[in-house]
Amino acid sequence: MTEDRVYNFSAGPSIMPEQVLQRARAELMNYHGSGMSVMEMSHRSPVFTEIFTDTKEKFRSILHVPESHEILFLQGGATLQFAAIPMNLMEGKTADYAVTGNFSNKAAKEAEKYGSVHIACDTADTGHNRIPTQEELDLSPDAKYFYYCANNTIYGTEWQYVPETAVPLVCDMSSDILSRPVDVSRFGLIYAGAQKNMAPAGLTVVIIDKALAGKELPCTPQIMSYETMIKNDSLLNTPPCWCIYMLSLVLDWLKEQGGVEGMEQLKKARAKRLYDCLEESRLFHLHALPGSRSDMNVTFRTGDPEMDAEFIRFAAARGLTNLKGHKIAGGMRASIYNAMPMEGVEALVDTIKEFERKHV
Amino acid sequence: MTEDRVYNFSAGPSIMPEQVLQRARAELMNYHGSGMSVMEMSHRSPVFTEIFTDTKEKFRSILHVPESHEILFLQGGATLQFAAIPMNLMEGKTADYAVTGNFSNKAAKEAEKYGSVHIACDTADTGHNRIPTQEELDLSPDAKYFYYCANNTIYGTEWQYVPETAVPLVCDMSSDILSRPVDVSRFGLIYAGAQKNMAPAGLTVVIIDKALAGKELPCTPQIMSYETMIKNDSLLNTPPCWCIYMLSLVLDWLKEQGGVEGMEQLKKARAKRLYDCLEESRLFHLHALPGSRSDMNVTFRTGDPEMDAEFIRFAAARGLTNLKGHKIAGGMRASIYNAMPMEGVEALVDTIKEFERKHV
Repeated sequence: MTEDRVYNFSAGPSIMPEQVLQRARAELMNYHGSGMSVMEMSHRSPVFTEIFTDTKEKFRSILHVPESHEILFLQGGATLQFAAIPMNLMEGKTADYAVTGNFSNKAAKEAEKYGSVHIACDTADTGHNRIPTQEELDLSPDAKYFYYCANNTIYGTEWQYVPETAVPLVCDMSSDILSRPVDVSRFGLIYAGAQKNMAPAGLTVVIIDKALAGKELPCTPQIMSYETMIKNDSLLNTPPCWCIYMLSLVLDWLKEQGGVEGMEQLKKARAKRLYDCLEESRLFHLHALPGSRSDMNVTFRTGDPEMDAEFIRFAAARGLTNLKGHKIAGGMRASIYNAMPMEGVEALVDTIKEFERKHV
Repeated sequence: MTEDRVYNFSAGPSIMPEQVLQRARAELMNYHGSGMSVMEMSHRSPVFTEIFTDTKEKFRSILHVPESHEILFLQGGATLQFAAIPMNLMEGKTADYAVTGNFSNKAAKEAEKYGSVHIACDTADTGHNRIPTQEELDLSPDAKYFYYCANNTIYGTEWQYVPETAVPLVCDMSSDILSRPVDVSRFGLIYAGAQKNMAPAGLTVVIIDKALAGKELPCTPQIMSYETMIKNDSLLNTPPCWCIYMLSLVLDWLKEQGGVEGMEQLKKARAKRLYDCLEESRLFHLHALPGSRSDMNVTFRTGDPEMDAEFIRFAAARGLTNLKGHKIAGGMRASIYNAMPMEGVEALVDTIKEFERKHV
């Protein structure tokens, strides 16, 4: 890191690539000779239209999104999608929800307003420390879709497989999108808040099989209708222009790193280094079970909340910040998204070992 | 203007104060020694919490928002509020809508999904070139609220008075918020998209009388419930952090300029200069009628679309951009929001006169 920056392990909003921020800074007052900042541009102007179109094309190319699917740039975060999904896809009937953490649970609760929710699995009994197997999923034949959250940020678990279902898959990829290749054609809808792997908070990307749009409930706000947003290419109203621009810069950076294929290698390397270190530890233990562990969020603890707090302070003093776990899970959490350099993970490993030597 | 910047007359997103952008650039990689960009900060971190709290306090102080009213920082733009307002305040019954332009018309159409809309006035018959008088408003006694749009960006009209009604006033101030003092206590709800007078696109400010919250329809998405957002101080989910930070910088700048009282003097001076010039013109005429004219958006035309297009090119070649009117109104529109310096207006006046000398 240069410019006196820290290694920021925040779960979201999260660390961004340093060279992306540097480019944003260089272009901030006057974008490409336009005489204005991207923050000042009319969303209908040719200069912003080019940014918008280019970002969408880069996103489609990098994640290999087929033409059957539309890419939408929306506002409101995952929380608005918790409502938009059942409003658009449930038709007042039923849907299956896999509850493997806090956010899938919230999504299921919100969907109850718009139809009948069937819980396909719930891992709350073991503190959401694992992902169920395909065989454990209780699928209902008349579901309009099957909903799951690919990566559980709070608990540090990640689905290592794509569920087999007879109905469209709907997936919250907020914390692992663009970190690995995905066969988008297998999904009816993928969505992700931008603030972990993509851009600053305020942008939500939705990738939807166009064949699923157009069945929204009458109470659906116009801006939440996927059909309307598809028809308007996300520009029914003013989009979050700055976030879209920042996504564009992130996509350029990501392509230089080898695309999602390159990201997958890096994420496996980062996670392996950290999990190996914690597996060997005599002080720390991991929360998530083998086979369910997330490459994005590594949850660990000593078992002693005071010792955990001491470690968090110890790391912060060394420029490793935001390692405190979510309040409902406790302990520590290291979020190691795309933008976390390997040097950050090495620094964390060194810090874990140093702390351990002092306390074991 | 320095740094080869243009005078940007865009209706939104719009010009921002140059010194605000310079400060954002200076702090972009490392905010106040935190070692990270505001774009990378957890919304629950102490450093961002301070930005959030401070921005809200500054906003309350500058617009003189009474304690009876809560200030919310939301996503989704005015378009999401078109649905949120009736979902929260209409109780499935009726509300009065004053239709004085495109956006109030859209708001009325959206509200029809959630109750019975009564049109209190509609100025479409004269091309929305005026604001109705108090006496012209057809008020219904059982309305849950009276809705109007304070400034009609597309047509260049602005309400010069606050309507007298027996029911709560709901007002879209997207294009004139913070440009003048407002007696907030007279309003049940004020809202504004940020991208004209406040911050980059992606933030919507809602100011609501807390006594009105808590009556939302069962189909209201959690994130659209004012009651829920009040209880969570806008932080039910991740807010648009960067936009909130930019608003904070704009508020600091605005305070240095004398607050909304200073802004009102400046806006009157800017508008007078431009209207006087256009009143005297033998080539251009104004769209909006005297007594209804907006200080924020000045709409004018020659009557000849080809001549209009030539003027727009002529001005652009002199660094005066985005003067083309909205497609549904035609002609020219000069948006002269808070951040437009008087020099920008002077440059436009000079350009109008120069063009006129060549063509009359």
